[in-house]
Amino acid sequence: MKTKRVITLLTDFGLEDEYAGVMKGVILSINGEVEIVDVTHQLRRHDIVQAALVVESSFRYFPPDSIHVVVVDPGVGGKRNIICAASEGHYFLVPDNGVLEFILARRKVDCIHAVTDPARFLREVSATFHGRDIFAPVAAHLAGGLSMSRLGNALTLEELVRIDLPTARRLSDGRLLGTVVSVDHFGNLITNIDRDTLGAFIGERDPADVNIRLGGLHIAGISTAYNAVPEGGPLAVVGSKNRLEISINQGDARTKVKGDEKEVTLTLR
Amino acid sequence: MKTKRVITLLTDFGLEDEYAGVMKGVILSINGEVEIVDVTHQLRRHDIVQAALVVESSFRYFPPDSIHVVVVDPGVGGKRNIICAASEGHYFLVPDNGVLEFILARRKVDCIHAVTDPARFLREVSATFHGRDIFAPVAAHLAGGLSMSRLGNALTLEELVRIDLPTARRLSDGRLLGTVVSVDHFGNLITNIDRDTLGAFIGERDPADVNIRLGGLHIAGISTAYNAVPEGGPLAVVGSKNRLEISINQGDARTKVKGDEKEVTLTLR
Amino acid sequence: MKTKRVITLLTDFGLEDEYAGVMKGVILSINGEVEIVDVTHQLRRHDIVQAALVVESSFRYFPPDSIHVVVVDPGVGGKRNIICAASEGHYFLVPDNGVLEFILARRKVDCIHAVTDPARFLREVSATFHGRDIFAPVAAHLAGGLSMSRLGNALTLEELVRIDLPTARRLSDGRLLGTVVSVDHFGNLITNIDRDTLGAFIGERDPADVNIRLGGLHIAGISTAYNAVPEGGPLAVVGSKNRLEISINQGDARTKVKGDEKEVTLTLR
Repeated sequence: MKTKRVITLLTDFGLEDEYAGVMKGVILSINGEVEIVDVTHQLRRHDIVQAALVVESSFRYFPPDSIHVVVVDPGVGGKRNIICAASEGHYFLVPDNGVLEFILARRKVDCIHAVTDPARFLREVSATFHGRDIFAPVAAHLAGGLSMSRLGNALTLEELVRIDLPTARRLSDGRLLGTVVSVDHFGNLITNIDRDTLGAFIGERDPADVNIRLGGLHIAGISTAYNAVPEGGPLAVVGSKNRLEISINQGDARTKVKGDEKEVTLTLR
Repeated sequence: MKTKRVITLLTDFGLEDEYAGVMKGVILSINGEVEIVDVTHQLRRHDIVQAALVVESSFRYFPPDSIHVVVVDPGVGGKRNIICAASEGHYFLVPDNGVLEFILARRKVDCIHAVTDPARFLREVSATFHGRDIFAPVAAHLAGGLSMSRLGNALTLEELVRIDLPTARRLSDGRLLGTVVSVDHFGNLITNIDRDTLGAFIGERDPADVNIRLGGLHIAGISTAYNAVPEGGPLAVVGSKNRLEISINQGDARTKVKGDEKEVTLTLR
Repeated sequence: MKTKRVITLLTDFGLEDEYAGVMKGVILSINGEVEIVDVTHQLRRHDIVQAALVVESSFRYFPPDSIHVVVVDPGVGGKRNIICAASEGHYFLVPDNGVLEFILARRKVDCIHAVTDPARFLREVSATFHGRDIFAPVAAHLAGGLSMSRLGNALTLEELVRIDLPTARRLSDGRLLGTVVSVDHFGNLITNIDRDTLGAFIGERDPADVNIRLGGLHIAGISTAYNAVPEGGPLAVVGSKNRLEISINQGDARTKVKGDEKEVTLTLR
């Protein structure tokens, strides 16, 4: 039995309306032999940076040839393009608005095509719901074996919309300055300090010698698991996204940070 | 490979309990060769009008022969009937309480049967969870090819419970009076003024000549996309449900309407 | 066509992050021939008792040979074990922290194995997301036919972590004292008084003769359906979980109980 192609959905549609379900109906109407997986429909509305983070954290855990459909699309119905990009054996079908920034900036992109041929869209295309009318049917056709080159003209990286993602940086006094870029369901505060940047900062020193400050929290050392500290205690850990996270063991770190401060500073003792 | 029949689920069960998952378990225990799609489990509790709107907005995007299971069922365990209706190549398995009003009122209904034969139910039927004990197993049997006529007696339209859905109407002074019937995840206010009614109101005039008033908002003209106005600006658009929607570009229209007003009035300049 | 094995997921991950979706990606990367069903991802964070209740209420509605993956895991990355247990034709892959208490206490458990062989894990195992790195790949291999005995050493019931679940008890004055252990989406208050305990308490008497008191609510008699009382009225019913529930017909019982009281007392008139 041939394994089905996977189509993943990442949107900010929420789950109270029929929007995500209707996209699945459109896909299955065109191609019943796909496996559709919700990555999340609860991205913050119109938050392109969060969408870019979630794409980066999730795509490589899916089977090769998966098609990742991202619909965080405040420009729907306007002049923004829709694009399809291939990278590391995965396909990304997205609005050209920055949601693919991590892929474009850090990974080898094999090819990019504009999505313009209405032959693959629903017959009637609304100006408000391209998830249903364009993204879903195009994803279904791709999963059925349609070549990306049939979607529209090839594009170069230089033709795409790029966004600035906040990056961690060394200050002149040697400190490492980062920022909280996301908060998860458990209240873990996810920073823009990735494992490599942290490793370069620590160098030959001991991770226990790093001091971390964030909005009134002072944390000594990088832990390897949440329960390295007593219940309710603060810690810093390189989490499952390969980024430094500030957490409370079995608690919610949001509630412990003064004034919703986002700036994280690291020093070496 | 034969494509699987689709069963869609629309309920007000929420997602924090096991209720929706257990329905899927029951379906797969009887018929493992179906594709189950959640349309939504976050309909407002016991809100039959919202359920009717979502059925109408979603069913036709699914493949022919799909079975749409709606469990918004405040009368569970009481005297209300369960019915199965076939319309336009789709099947609807629902409590007889009005959730099918749009289908019954506007579309050709081929046949309707009461769902009374306990041979297709779980052996023990609780008085509180017919989604699990009746709807799920009956849907699984229908997907496996069971004829509707085996579920129970044929019914006529006249035997069903009907509900009044608020309809838009022309006032004696020529204005069109509608009402907000639903609000989506993005804060778009969805009215009962559908594309046809709006078209008849506008006639030969220009959509730019329509003035829309709702709870302190004054909007000039019908837009064709959200970003036809600056970010944060109000607009009116015929949305993906083919209804007039009042929206804020990249904002939440709920927060801009005074006193939770629902009445929308349209005039021609 | 062979029916797919079912893997169910019960977690406290919420749906706003990619965590649940990524688990599915890992499973499908290893074994594309499984049916993954979400039971819920909205268990209360780190609430082991609620997880145990949901496992008990849901597993038997799934097909034989289903693999139930429970990730409510405050001890992730610490010394707690991961175990796999077989009971009544179902498999349970869980942290050894009490989430299986109802199965262990009340059902025949055929065998239990520790999950320790890293050959079945992702190559890199984080200290913070075993759902992705251990539970998902092990479940995928089990669904593909891997024997439990290959996961790690056999364990006895005596070697497992056990938790005290609150049980109902008879007081010296004859009253039955129970407690509210969970609240569902509809605001139904679910007690620890199960059908058997209630039956023994009532004995030869009439269910209408039971008086129920909970935080200022006085309810006379056990009803058989929500609408046995007028809309807005309180009632007691043996619900779909086979437990006594305190409900408001078409309302939310939480709002009617004084001071968030949990203690329920039953007397016979």
